[in-house]
Amino acid sequence: MNYNAHSIAMMESRIRSRFINSLSGFKSANLIGTSDLEGNENLAIVSSAFHLGSTPPLMGLIIRPSSVERHTLQNILATKCYTINAVSHDFLASAHQTSARYSKLESEFEKANLTPYYISEFNAPFVRESPLKLAMNLVDHQTLAVNGTEMVIGEIQNVLVSDTAVMPDGYVDVEALDIVTVSGLDSYHITQRIGRLSYAKPDQKLHPLTKEGEPSSWDAFGLSNFNR
Amino acid sequence: MNYNAHSIAMMESRIRSRFINSLSGFKSANLIGTSDLEGNENLAIVSSAFHLGSTPPLMGLIIRPSSVERHTLQNILATKCYTINAVSHDFLASAHQTSARYSKLESEFEKANLTPYYISEFNAPFVRESPLKLAMNLVDHQTLAVNGTEMVIGEIQNVLVSDTAVMPDGYVDVEALDIVTVSGLDSYHITQRIGRLSYAKPDQKLHPLTKEGEPSSWDAFGLSNFNR
Repeated sequence: MNYNAHSIAMMESRIRSRFINSLSGFKSANLIGTSDLEGNENLAIVSSAFHLGSTPPLMGLIIRPSSVERHTLQNILATKCYTINAVSHDFLASAHQTSARYSKLESEFEKANLTPYYISEFNAPFVRESPLKLAMNLVDHQTLAVNGTEMVIGEIQNVLVSDTAVMPDGYVDVEALDIVTVSGLDSYHITQRIGRLSYAKPDQKLHPLTKEGEPSSWDAFGLSNFNR
Repeated sequence: MNYNAHSIAMMESRIRSRFINSLSGFKSANLIGTSDLEGNENLAIVSSAFHLGSTPPLMGLIIRPSSVERHTLQNILATKCYTINAVSHDFLASAHQTSARYSKLESEFEKANLTPYYISEFNAPFVRESPLKLAMNLVDHQTLAVNGTEMVIGEIQNVLVSDTAVMPDGYVDVEALDIVTVSGLDSYHITQRIGRLSYAKPDQKLHPLTKEGEPSSWDAFGLSNFNR
């Protein structure tokens, strides 16, 4: 089926929103933890976190200012810091509940039954239940001219994660942490690793890697159409 | 374990790259199809596609200009169009192979054994093997001041997808299309749906949805800590 610009524009708006939000495929699910200058805590689920670079370690976020994420944006701009907390299977529904439109003085931590957690010398709250927590300092912010969404860029200051999930070559086994992935606006999925693949070079065959980064076998892939 | 800014900066650069690239969690895997003004085709795998808005339907991409993705960027800027093709399980290794550093006149389609596919009135090549293909027109481009990466924003002109994957409420069942998700630089995963969740409202209990968007049961979630 070919949906063209006209048929997309003619969709009922909520159907179009679900449809277009599905087209970027699987996304990360993260809770953004912030507080205002008076210390009132806020928590919002986003699926828009993206990698920007490793040196320095940077991540971006897209925030719609008219949405329930507006308190998050206000707090980030006021305090210059925030946390990114990966959502795992066991608190998934609590995480989704933070997308409800609470008032500014209501804490989504309390409403969704999640636990604020702090480290010294960092003012934004983490989510204790999350197995992968990032402390972020704001480094840049802009309103995108194309549609008025806000892009927030932060530098990673701290990474709180179990050592057992960090492989010898640096890869973090997010699957072992029971971190979920989201598709569309509201569909949550667990994952099963097919495998890792070696660094690709021209005229050299790929080979699979174990999750530790060691050479492995093709058997798990079940691929039929590649130059094995 | 708490990795701080200093311990991250002290990591060996390839280890840091794998580590930081893992922290954004599960990402989409997409092949970007382009051609230059002479019609030479190019294909590059990216994990940086992100949703920007539904009305108009916009998606963003992050491209590192020094990487193998530079031909992709040059072609997008020259022709103002490109395709985004979701990677599914059966051509995953071919898709990964496109990340090798081929010269500008070598086609990654040929090198990775993938098939160019065209529709009328659109000049960029799709990947025939992909179950979810998007035709994109360039609408904005900027070099991000924080680290020199390039952000490309495009408007969705066409969506080629099987009707059977499009649910009545607009959600596209990307899992049914065998689309994979990627974590870190090189780990590929299939998914298993936990469920969809209803639109969250303050002081109202969530309920699960079937993939078609109909009310469902909590049994599949296996959650213990939520106000069911």
